[in-house]
Amino acid sequence: MDGSGLRERLAADGQAHLLRFWDELKEAERGELLADLNICHFPEILRFFRQAVQGSEALREQQKVDEHMEPVPKEVQGSVTRDRERLPTWEAEGLLQISQSKVAVLLLAGGQGTRLGVTSPKGMYNVGLLSQKTLFQIQAERILKLQQLASEQFGHKCTIPWYIMTSGRTMDSTNEFFVKNNYFGLQKENIILFQQGMLPAMTFDGKAILEGKSKIAMAPDGNGGLYRALGNQKIVEDMEDRGIAYVHVYCVDNILVKVADPIFIGFCVKQQADCGAKVVEKTHPTEAVGVVCKVNGLYQVVEYSEITLVTAQKRNADGRLTFNAGNICNHFFTLQFLKDVVKIHEPKLRHHVAQKKIPYINDQGQQIKPDKPNGIKMEKFVFDIFQFSKKFVIFEVLREDEFSPLKNADSQDGKDTPTTARHALMSLHHRWVLNAGGHFVDENGTRIPAIPSLKELTDLPIKCEISALVSYAGEGLEKYVASRDFRTPLIIDENGAQELIQNGL
Amino acid sequence: MDGSGLRERLAADGQAHLLRFWDELKEAERGELLADLNICHFPEILRFFRQAVQGSEALREQQKVDEHMEPVPKEVQGSVTRDRERLPTWEAEGLLQISQSKVAVLLLAGGQGTRLGVTSPKGMYNVGLLSQKTLFQIQAERILKLQQLASEQFGHKCTIPWYIMTSGRTMDSTNEFFVKNNYFGLQKENIILFQQGMLPAMTFDGKAILEGKSKIAMAPDGNGGLYRALGNQKIVEDMEDRGIAYVHVYCVDNILVKVADPIFIGFCVKQQADCGAKVVEKTHPTEAVGVVCKVNGLYQVVEYSEITLVTAQKRNADGRLTFNAGNICNHFFTLQFLKDVVKIHEPKLRHHVAQKKIPYINDQGQQIKPDKPNGIKMEKFVFDIFQFSKKFVIFEVLREDEFSPLKNADSQDGKDTPTTARHALMSLHHRWVLNAGGHFVDENGTRIPAIPSLKELTDLPIKCEISALVSYAGEGLEKYVASRDFRTPLIIDENGAQELIQNGL
Repeated sequence: MDGSGLRERLAADGQAHLLRFWDELKEAERGELLADLNICHFPEILRFFRQAVQGSEALREQQKVDEHMEPVPKEVQGSVTRDRERLPTWEAEGLLQISQSKVAVLLLAGGQGTRLGVTSPKGMYNVGLLSQKTLFQIQAERILKLQQLASEQFGHKCTIPWYIMTSGRTMDSTNEFFVKNNYFGLQKENIILFQQGMLPAMTFDGKAILEGKSKIAMAPDGNGGLYRALGNQKIVEDMEDRGIAYVHVYCVDNILVKVADPIFIGFCVKQQADCGAKVVEKTHPTEAVGVVCKVNGLYQVVEYSEITLVTAQKRNADGRLTFNAGNICNHFFTLQFLKDVVKIHEPKLRHHVAQKKIPYINDQGQQIKPDKPNGIKMEKFVFDIFQFSKKFVIFEVLREDEFSPLKNADSQDGKDTPTTARHALMSLHHRWVLNAGGHFVDENGTRIPAIPSLKELTDLPIKCEISALVSYAGEGLEKYVASRDFRTPLIIDENGAQELIQNGL
Repeated sequence: MDGSGLRERLAADGQAHLLRFWDELKEAERGELLADLNICHFPEILRFFRQAVQGSEALREQQKVDEHMEPVPKEVQGSVTRDRERLPTWEAEGLLQISQSKVAVLLLAGGQGTRLGVTSPKGMYNVGLLSQKTLFQIQAERILKLQQLASEQFGHKCTIPWYIMTSGRTMDSTNEFFVKNNYFGLQKENIILFQQGMLPAMTFDGKAILEGKSKIAMAPDGNGGLYRALGNQKIVEDMEDRGIAYVHVYCVDNILVKVADPIFIGFCVKQQADCGAKVVEKTHPTEAVGVVCKVNGLYQVVEYSEITLVTAQKRNADGRLTFNAGNICNHFFTLQFLKDVVKIHEPKLRHHVAQKKIPYINDQGQQIKPDKPNGIKMEKFVFDIFQFSKKFVIFEVLREDEFSPLKNADSQDGKDTPTTARHALMSLHHRWVLNAGGHFVDENGTRIPAIPSLKELTDLPIKCEISALVSYAGEGLEKYVASRDFRTPLIIDENGAQELIQNGL
């Protein structure tokens, strides 16, 4: 292949520069470049580019978005703390839907763990739990347990299919990982991997950026690439074939995620919502979390970087922040809503523009790391479609119970690191043991207070891990722990409660 | 001196073991030991010991304290977020009292920075601010500024005397530090250092513990040692002589502390309270913070280690934790109340018992570090006297504005470290600049969003420090920052606003 027909096509789209090192490339390198070019459909990419740039200019000319923000009305809010008496009803409804195999979970796992400092998919990350389980395994076991709980309660088998959106960067390794681990006990046919699109980074004047002589700077098209992928890979049809009615969408990096949370699903179903977002309370004005709100009457997530301090500091009469519905990328959709989105709404949405410093190759063939933004990435966001919802709801949950994302590598003062994720899970499981009537004792047999002092490193979260195969959300632990004293580290799994120290670990 | 009369007295009190290495001690060592013995009045110490042990046994036999806990009633609560419209009134009242020189501040600085890993008093610690100011200097400058604000507003000079409670371990170095630094611009006669008592650690059977052949294991008698010291060092009389009516008591380690906070003082005065506690909202059940509450009808602070998880998890209808008044060791007292406490109430209070692992010297003269608790320390707490208040109030403030204690050395995932303290102050001052109409720009001149993303280390809090000599609580900054763009690091002090990067720093 000499790339000549290609050269003309690229020239027509103003992308001829991508081939400027072609003559010096080896055969294998030419293959690499062609592979990248193969997934770049430039007429469409240029249309995205023009629309995205227009959109971002329009946005800049507009008033600040936060002058048009309104909080989510009370009537469409549910809360694990304010609606405690209704939780059992919602949970029963959610379990009923699950037992009828009407609920699917959909995992957003197309991103790479760049900030985490790994090259493999985040789901394969081991945060250092006692069990050494990866995020994928933890989630798989929660699905298994929930299927079991719903089946037992309603007396017939059920399935929660697990759709996993990967990207060109994570597809193969994700697939291999599941094969190698025998799908963690799930049925192979109920784990459906699909792939989101990739887009090239562009210069401000619309040229795709070469990051190496034979490599285009490509990245996944944002977690909102979901909707296009749902359509072009016939995932919606697959859901329909399986009789799915409700889809729980979540992001891979939250170690505490309650996949297919029956309470959340039951709440949304009972409210007859077509679209719902699980949120945690934003606790201080400058916390870096997007907030779910209404802008000009339409629901959306306003990212923290778009909010002025004045808006962020607004408070209600009860002292709470006015804009406190912190988005945690944890959503409910009816299949009908997803179908409308895929067919009607999403294709009309513009990509968001993010100015970035994108490493590029200069005309002398050297790779340059720019110190100023030199181009843009185009992304859609999973929450871009909230605006199309006819009945939108939010459900507030407790951060310490449900949200601890893994984003950064361990470092001093790190936020959202393997250590914070591990501690969050162990702290939750510690509370489960106490709430089920168990206790922990120190090396002298003295009971350890329920609230650890964190004064010394040795006081860090009690090392305790409970397999999701044993308990999905703290239920059913009494028979293992009630009135028992445990030394740490403690694991409760299929083999019962085990104090690891006795095994010399 | 051969210690013979002493030997008999010690024997009579069952403490003869303290002299068992006497014969082999050098002259200087004998002097050391005698100095320790000199401050140990054993008949009294043994009385404390018996009462403390009885008290702790009684406590153990009693029902769990948390079965008797009630939250602080709404009627005696004030809040910076729920009572915003009343804040100006309270602030004006506080400034009025300050302008009449009726307000003193009292600093609890008797502890040593053991956990922080330093041997000098914590107040001398430099957390690494741009200015390299120590905690003592930051507090001194806030006092200076507040005197100035009150004086200007009411047209006459005023003084806020600063009482500083040290201990045997911190007295000399604290004094030297203030002398060397010329009292940070305050009047020498308005800084009054005094000393809290020391008590020996005791074995469970009432023997003082030798930590070296010539050294008794002594420690300050807790921050509640304040009241005894106020009496026996005639501090109350000094306050009376100066015409003080209200005292603001706080702990040295909070870098954000608003010394003599006029809003808090004004609130307490307007409520005609004799005793008040500033609190922050406890945000999750297992946060390690004591809570202000009522137990059997009397106000007290229940420490987190005494609370069961069931109680800690209790919530109100609005979803907030029922016991959420987090104690931050920041209190208001009328002088009249302090006088009653010193004369009448405090002497009747028992010491609290804390079982500890106390290094000791064995009969062979070797120092042993025990791996189980081998003795107790006796302490009183500054909040032990809440129960005597006739009109008690609490005032809730925002943690991000007012509370960031320095307790531990920097370490991975550290809480309450020099880094977290530094970040808290810079983040507050960043918000002050934004709220006064200033902006920060990056190296390309692009405005930095008000809410930093914390995605990368470079996004950590904007380096910005405002001298207390310029602003006590964010006021008066418009003339320095309004409509200006700043690059960081930024310092605003007596010399105006300076971008340090231009000076090559």
